[in-house]
Amino acid sequence: MKGFIIDLDGTIYKNYQIIDGAREAIELLKKNNLPFVFLSNRGNISRKDCLKKLNQIGIDCRIEDVILASTIAARFFQQRKEESIWILGDEGLKEELIDHQVNLASKPEQADWLLITLHEQLTYEDLNNAFRAVLNGARIAVTNHDLIFPREDGPCIDVGGLIAAITATTGAKVQYSFGKPSPFMRDAALQQLQLEATDCVVIGDGLSTDMQLGIINEMKTAFVLSGVASVEDLHKANITPLFMGNTILDVVKDILEGVKHEYH
Amino acid sequence: MKGFIIDLDGTIYKNYQIIDGAREAIELLKKNNLPFVFLSNRGNISRKDCLKKLNQIGIDCRIEDVILASTIAARFFQQRKEESIWILGDEGLKEELIDHQVNLASKPEQADWLLITLHEQLTYEDLNNAFRAVLNGARIAVTNHDLIFPREDGPCIDVGGLIAAITATTGAKVQYSFGKPSPFMRDAALQQLQLEATDCVVIGDGLSTDMQLGIINEMKTAFVLSGVASVEDLHKANITPLFMGNTILDVVKDILEGVKHEYH
Repeated sequence: MKGFIIDLDGTIYKNYQIIDGAREAIELLKKNNLPFVFLSNRGNISRKDCLKKLNQIGIDCRIEDVILASTIAARFFQQRKEESIWILGDEGLKEELIDHQVNLASKPEQADWLLITLHEQLTYEDLNNAFRAVLNGARIAVTNHDLIFPREDGPCIDVGGLIAAITATTGAKVQYSFGKPSPFMRDAALQQLQLEATDCVVIGDGLSTDMQLGIINEMKTAFVLSGVASVEDLHKANITPLFMGNTILDVVKDILEGVKHEYH
Repeated sequence: MKGFIIDLDGTIYKNYQIIDGAREAIELLKKNNLPFVFLSNRGNISRKDCLKKLNQIGIDCRIEDVILASTIAARFFQQRKEESIWILGDEGLKEELIDHQVNLASKPEQADWLLITLHEQLTYEDLNNAFRAVLNGARIAVTNHDLIFPREDGPCIDVGGLIAAITATTGAKVQYSFGKPSPFMRDAALQQLQLEATDCVVIGDGLSTDMQLGIINEMKTAFVLSGVASVEDLHKANITPLFMGNTILDVVKDILEGVKHEYH
């Protein structure tokens, strides 16, 4: 194993609370000179926000070690300067788009694209503006499709809910989804690591995101139980990761020892 | 024609703005001693709120002349006192439920039912509480399924968006929908009018609501162009109402004259 692609929510932290062993796991990778990249479907924060948060909870890394769905969306629309974007989502996405000089629409009715991400500050008028953008012809792109994310106080409704609200009422379909397991995220991670997919392991708590990214790209997979999915969910989804543990520290230790964890 | 079943949003008013001719149309019915009932899929206001609004815009009627989807939902859950309800929707629905002594859950996780209606004061936490109610086993009922409603400043996303957000992220299905064209609404209207369905005409701007209510119950149908749907929408939906006009005054005059309006 040459490179590590590591999820954040449910793997490294839950909101502002670090998960047991996460700091030690990253230190272990560094001590062994193993390159890693944090790859997260979070689209509602900017890389700067995320780096600050990681540093605050004691994870020492650089901004280029962090790739978010918001980063990927911003890079995508940076290449389409002639088109304007309306956002349904938190301020972090807007910051990331502005950092990439993306053209933001001044009114929903004038937008070429509606870009949807998680919106924890959502109001009805935000939802209605997004609806009107699509009614007036904006195409839909989304940072990710996740249905649920973990917070300290329990599971929370994710961007999938906002996407469904807009698509069900307008009849429009999503044109692009940037998050894991999309090739946008894969390419960005491998470019940062400068490695081939088959040399990498994906560590995460998500079945349709992290595990799926690994499966479709012939990467190794390592599943952690510290997030939203359980062993039962794994079985239901008929997914058999190569490694499994309660925390990222467990699986990193197993990977370094070359142990395939048996959990049947 | 013995009785009139009349829609509100898009037929009598748009938000707080009366539609041309609505006051005169109601006065014409009264002068001819023709009974009428207002039947609206609005679930986010109480009957008291609605009566106050009608009176403010010059429509003179009694509280029993108004039947809302919130009224029907409240009557339904009044019969199920042992079950507790969590609401995703505006305060008007809560008032209507309290007026009917419905058992409201104190926490989303404890609710037997999630009742969804339009929520123009929506926040993310409201949406998340509803999500958690369903994750914890609450069944879903909705005041109505409407996707869009008219406001003075343009079309707005309706309760259908909120329903989709919850069902798409939880995998749960809607168990009861009280609004038009449901039999709950039909029965309430006919009971108020003390008439048979075939003796009544439904007047409204909704295809899947008002026109559908008429079609499936062998009522007469009268379509008004003052709301969200156009003649083109009618043709697309392959619906041929018996009467059609720009406003409710046009169709009431035609009905009283027994004229079948030709618009093909």
